[in-house]
Amino acid sequence: MNKAEMKQAVLAAKRHGGLSWSDIAEAAGLSPEFTCSACLGMNHLEERSATAVAELLGLSTDVADALQTFPDKSWVNTIPTDPLIYRWYEMVNVYGETIKELIHEEFGDGIMSAIDFTMKIDREEDPKGDRVHVTISGKFLPYKSW
Amino acid sequence: MNKAEMKQAVLAAKRHGGLSWSDIAEAAGLSPEFTCSACLGMNHLEERSATAVAELLGLSTDVADALQTFPDKSWVNTIPTDPLIYRWYEMVNVYGETIKELIHEEFGDGIMSAIDFTMKIDREEDPKGDRVHVTISGKFLPYKSW
Amino acid sequence: MNKAEMKQAVLAAKRHGGLSWSDIAEAAGLSPEFTCSACLGMNHLEERSATAVAELLGLSTDVADALQTFPDKSWVNTIPTDPLIYRWYEMVNVYGETIKELIHEEFGDGIMSAIDFTMKIDREEDPKGDRVHVTISGKFLPYKSW
Amino acid sequence: MNKAEMKQAVLAAKRHGGLSWSDIAEAAGLSPEFTCSACLGMNHLEERSATAVAELLGLSTDVADALQTFPDKSWVNTIPTDPLIYRWYEMVNVYGETIKELIHEEFGDGIMSAIDFTMKIDREEDPKGDRVHVTISGKFLPYKSW
Amino acid sequence: MNKAEMKQAVLAAKRHGGLSWSDIAEAAGLSPEFTCSACLGMNHLEERSATAVAELLGLSTDVADALQTFPDKSWVNTIPTDPLIYRWYEMVNVYGETIKELIHEEFGDGIMSAIDFTMKIDREEDPKGDRVHVTISGKFLPYKSW
Amino acid sequence: MNKAEMKQAVLAAKRHGGLSWSDIAEAAGLSPEFTCSACLGMNHLEERSATAVAELLGLSTDVADALQTFPDKSWVNTIPTDPLIYRWYEMVNVYGETIKELIHEEFGDGIMSAIDFTMKIDREEDPKGDRVHVTISGKFLPYKSW
Amino acid sequence: MNKAEMKQAVLAAKRHGGLSWSDIAEAAGLSPEFTCSACLGMNHLEERSATAVAELLGLSTDVADALQTFPDKSWVNTIPTDPLIYRWYEMVNVYGETIKELIHEEFGDGIMSAIDFTMKIDREEDPKGDRVHVTISGKFLPYKSW
Amino acid sequence: MNKAEMKQAVLAAKRHGGLSWSDIAEAAGLSPEFTCSACLGMNHLEERSATAVAELLGLSTDVADALQTFPDKSWVNTIPTDPLIYRWYEMVNVYGETIKELIHEEFGDGIMSAIDFTMKIDREEDPKGDRVHVTISGKFLPYKSW
Amino acid sequence: MNKAEMKQAVLAAKRHGGLSWSDIAEAAGLSPEFTCSACLGMNHLEERSATAVAELLGLSTDVADALQTFPDKSWVNTIPTDPLIYRWYEMVNVYGETIKELIHEEFGDGIMSAIDFTMKIDREEDPKGDRVHVTISGKFLPYKSW
Amino acid sequence: MNKAEMKQAVLAAKRHGGLSWSDIAEAAGLSPEFTCSACLGMNHLEERSATAVAELLGLSTDVADALQTFPDKSWVNTIPTDPLIYRWYEMVNVYGETIKELIHEEFGDGIMSAIDFTMKIDREEDPKGDRVHVTISGKFLPYKSW
Repeated sequence: MNKAEMKQAVLAAKRHGGLSWSDIAEAAGLSPEFTCSACLGMNHLEERSATAVAELLGLSTDVADALQTFPDKSWVNTIPTDPLIYRWYEMVNVYGETIKELIHEEFGDGIMSAIDFTMKIDREEDPKGDRVHVTISGKFLPYKSW
Repeated sequence: MNKAEMKQAVLAAKRHGGLSWSDIAEAAGLSPEFTCSACLGMNHLEERSATAVAELLGLSTDVADALQTFPDKSWVNTIPTDPLIYRWYEMVNVYGETIKELIHEEFGDGIMSAIDFTMKIDREEDPKGDRVHVTISGKFLPYKSW
Repeated sequence: MNKAEMKQAVLAAKRHGGLSWSDIAEAAGLSPEFTCSACLGMNHLEERSATAVAELLGLSTDVADALQTFPDKSWVNTIPTDPLIYRWYEMVNVYGETIKELIHEEFGDGIMSAIDFTMKIDREEDPKGDRVHVTISGKFLPYKSW
Repeated sequence: MNKAEMKQAVLAAKRHGGLSWSDIAEAAGLSPEFTCSACLGMNHLEERSATAVAELLGLSTDVADALQTFPDKSWVNTIPTDPLIYRWYEMVNVYGETIKELIHEEFGDGIMSAIDFTMKIDREEDPKGDRVHVTISGKFLPYKSW
Repeated sequence: MNKAEMKQAVLAAKRHGGLSWSDIAEAAGLSPEFTCSACLGMNHLEERSATAVAELLGLSTDVADALQTFPDKSWVNTIPTDPLIYRWYEMVNVYGETIKELIHEEFGDGIMSAIDFTMKIDREEDPKGDRVHVTISGKFLPYKSW
Repeated sequence: MNKAEMKQAVLAAKRHGGLSWSDIAEAAGLSPEFTCSACLGMNHLEERSATAVAELLGLSTDVADALQTFPDKSWVNTIPTDPLIYRWYEMVNVYGETIKELIHEEFGDGIMSAIDFTMKIDREEDPKGDRVHVTISGKFLPYKSW
Repeated sequence: MNKAEMKQAVLAAKRHGGLSWSDIAEAAGLSPEFTCSACLGMNHLEERSATAVAELLGLSTDVADALQTFPDKSWVNTIPTDPLIYRWYEMVNVYGETIKELIHEEFGDGIMSAIDFTMKIDREEDPKGDRVHVTISGKFLPYKSW
Repeated sequence: MNKAEMKQAVLAAKRHGGLSWSDIAEAAGLSPEFTCSACLGMNHLEERSATAVAELLGLSTDVADALQTFPDKSWVNTIPTDPLIYRWYEMVNVYGETIKELIHEEFGDGIMSAIDFTMKIDREEDPKGDRVHVTISGKFLPYKSW
Repeated sequence: MNKAEMKQAVLAAKRHGGLSWSDIAEAAGLSPEFTCSACLGMNHLEERSATAVAELLGLSTDVADALQTFPDKSWVNTIPTDPLIYRWYEMVNVYGETIKELIHEEFGDGIMSAIDFTMKIDREEDPKGDRVHVTISGKFLPYKSW
Repeated sequence: MNKAEMKQAVLAAKRHGGLSWSDIAEAAGLSPEFTCSACLGMNHLEERSATAVAELLGLSTDVADALQTFPDKSWVNTIPTDPLIYRWYEMVNVYGETIKELIHEEFGDGIMSAIDFTMKIDREEDPKGDRVHVTISGKFLPYKSW
């Protein structure tokens, strides 16, 4: 079972079981964000988490195995088309140089890791219309000179 | 004076004056993130803020005028090359579908606005190496049916 | 049933039943434009509308379910090839800067929403050859400063 | 004087003179939309209109000449980057097939002309936030068989 | 039956029946050029022509139906690879500006329609080697000002 | 003097002198189509023609020299943007396979030369709107087997 | 049987029969280079050659028919990836302008035909390591003026 | 003096002096093909050759220095546009797999070097029209296993 | 059995048998790096190695045959997406000119072969976090002049 | 002084002074590889190193300042064209999946850092032709789950 088949199986079982990503994350003992990304095939789970997710969803050990496989991260559109994801792409390009300026000012020359990295997505209530509140934390990695 | 010339003038004056983005933001009465993006030419400032920034930097009213012009937002590389910005591009593509799943689960079909939007970048102290802490808040906009 | 299969099923049933988009829209209680876009897989319908559309077309609940799924909006050609759609692409590029100038003059810096958005397509009779009359209405969203 | 220099001269004189596109259009005897597109270099003006525009703006006959030159319509970004223009690009791709379906149903096989074409952009007042109201009219052209 | 399947069926039946495009065009009551383009899926036929073509080729009414469907015109290679078609692409790019100059001189600002359009391909006998003689006629459409 | 400077000089002198492409072609002793393409830098002229064109336009021998240089044929947009030229690009892609079918049926496997090639552009009067009439003649070149 | 299936059948039969391209070429009465290119689907064979090749390989008349079909020449990678083919692509780009200079000096303005063309590939023994010796002959075609 | 300026200086002096590539090559003590590629900036010359070329052309030691600089080989069009060079690009793609098959059959798995490589371009007289005769020799390099 | 099927078969058998790349390499009598690349379809193995690998993995002679086939090296993403491989792509672009400078200084004008080439990947223990230690050795090939 | 001007100044002074990268690296107190990359504008130097490099080269403090600026890492060709750098690009794509397999087997899921990273380039003497010996060391970074 490859990652694409695993993803379809998980999404179908989630819908059928009326489960939320929080329910699945609780079984995995991880955050909804990471758990969801693993179920979509972009991260892997450790054995304990993978087994718990498969059991909660009533899926076979094939799914648990596929969840543990190290993924090959790839995407089809170099520029995303879905409006929700494109807005993020736009944000990275409109504010990319700003982010670079501010990180360099605070930390020096280096990057914010996309590997040692966490993300949290919440609802932020607002009388003018609720907002999506995102918290991202990435380790600063200074460029090494040698 | 166009936005590119304005940006060079601001960066040179900032370096020469030993000012931080917080100093400039304080003069503008805005956040460092928004102020920096306006100085880089990706947003505009209202007259009062533009004048204050130009004065703090010891720059002419041409710069203040240019800061008030509505920008034409554009970028050269559809896929960013600088490692710091690429890591964000990678994050959007690795986690884009995850973000879509979680926002749709919480809010229904719609997007997170990149227009009614704020961003904050902080240092998060960590004994294993300090981290870049980012907070983003974008208004949820449901798709309209008609 | 995924969106592509749903689309084929709807188009086949529509042809077989000799129905127009207005007929289907009436069942959905929505405009022909929005209803058509949902049947083509680019928007979703609420349960009541989805069920009514499926019933009118004599299709299974699988179709009704698929109509309710939140779509992943994507397109194959970054530059459209079909002459009808290319003419719109050309219009956006020839008049894009004009539209930007006029909206900025009237409303200030911001965008016209493609989410809180409606479109209507009508026949405009004309002795020199009938015309396609299009009315688009998108909410103005000012850029937020912070 | 080429179209790019002409455009810069017109925009500078417009700003300096505190004129609106409606003012300039009135001098040209045309709509603000068409007049603006010609001043940006994407259409040409007839001699009378070109002269009147140059005079109103206090510009030389070089500008009037350049306004009358037939343009070479071109754009740099095959996918627009500015958020305002991108939203239109997105709209064309999300709704392109819908537009095609509805025009074909009403008119038969053919296209909506981007040459014999008009566009009008207005403010639509709305208590929940004003909207951009756009009216487009393009002649239907049936495919010729032979 | 979609256009791709229809095309394969027509080409196979044509080869099997030893028919020429002129034979098929005669049945359709149209030119070989237009008839061929419709059989390849790039135009549609009216019912009478479609039925006559299907009958001549000994094909089912499914083929006749598919011939009547309005096509979605698309192509895979933005730059053609087959040498015969590439030579035309090269011709358009080498002589494009020349064509534009001469049409503008003769007709004013506008285009030559690719919709109200005919094409004829003939053998031109020549002792130094026969030539392909092509006649194209497209309606001139002036840009509308408004 | 390179080809780009030569082209600007020729176009300016032509405008200033109120000359048509036919006038210039007559001086060159060639067709307007070929002469125009050489003046735009996409072909070269023999010495006699080049000198005659430069003299008619009142230009220096630098221009005559530049007209005789063998050109490096290149174009910026792999997909043309100007509507007039794009319509030809569209025509090549919509009818490319049709052209290939008909040439192969008549001549066998081979191509129509874009080198041993002529083109003529005329006005075709038509009560429903005049048409652009184009005649192209290219030598058929059979693929060699060996 | 399409060209892709034909190619697989020929390659399998060649491997199974332990035949070389020279053996197959001998049956076809043509060079190994041309015969190989036809078997790979990039050229067609005349009936006699096609039949002889199919017989030698013990393949059906379907293969012989497919070998006679006029090919649609296409390739997937606009920049080849396989190192052997990329080296040729690199050679064309590094030496392309040199080839153009030398052909223009010797022959005047024109091209070297890729249609009336032959190629031969041989081993060139060399004590420092054997070399691939390639001989290409293409007819010079002068640009026609008219 | 960079390679682009050097190239312009060499081409101008060559034209002015009425020299052929053979004349220049003789001075360099190398083939016309290699000498031409070095003068166009795609290879470097050893000191003796560079000095001799500069002297023959009556150019300064700056040119001789620039001829000795190791080049950065680059090209603008990933797919060549000039018809002469495009025909070579087409040849590489039409015959690339054939070349690979024949080299692998004769030599085993490996490549033909584009570094240890020579090329010769000659006129091949032919009553049906002279031909360009090209001889290429590249060292075969077997893939190393380890 | 093609290379893609072979790769799947090898990876499945390796997982099932609990073997490491070192185990497989030992059977092949080659390094883990080269053996792995051959099993992934990017190199071929000699008969002895191929047979030994197939036997160790308990796979059929079809796999052994496929391992001996000369590969067509190709990749889907011209810019890799997987973060691990992208980091290498980034390294080549950030340090490419540095590598060129240092090789040219040490060896003169030429390249480092990617054909006569070896690579070794090891763990380098480090108290601050273990490192990937890579050793690459490629034969220097000087550009030939002629 | 920007990075591009700095690079030209350094390269010219290096050539003029007859210095090697090792000489400059010794002044900087760093490796030749890192020092070279900083001089080419792809890394920055600390003040002490930057001053020492500028002094050794006899360049102004402007150069020393520019060497200390944090770079914006960018490159023009997404696929490198220079043969030396392309060979590395090819190596990354041919062996990318192999590298991923072996790192994952040894370290688990994660990447090899291109930030905490060193590279060393040496001559490896070999009777069959000297080789370029490259040693790369990058910290392994495991994907974080949360």
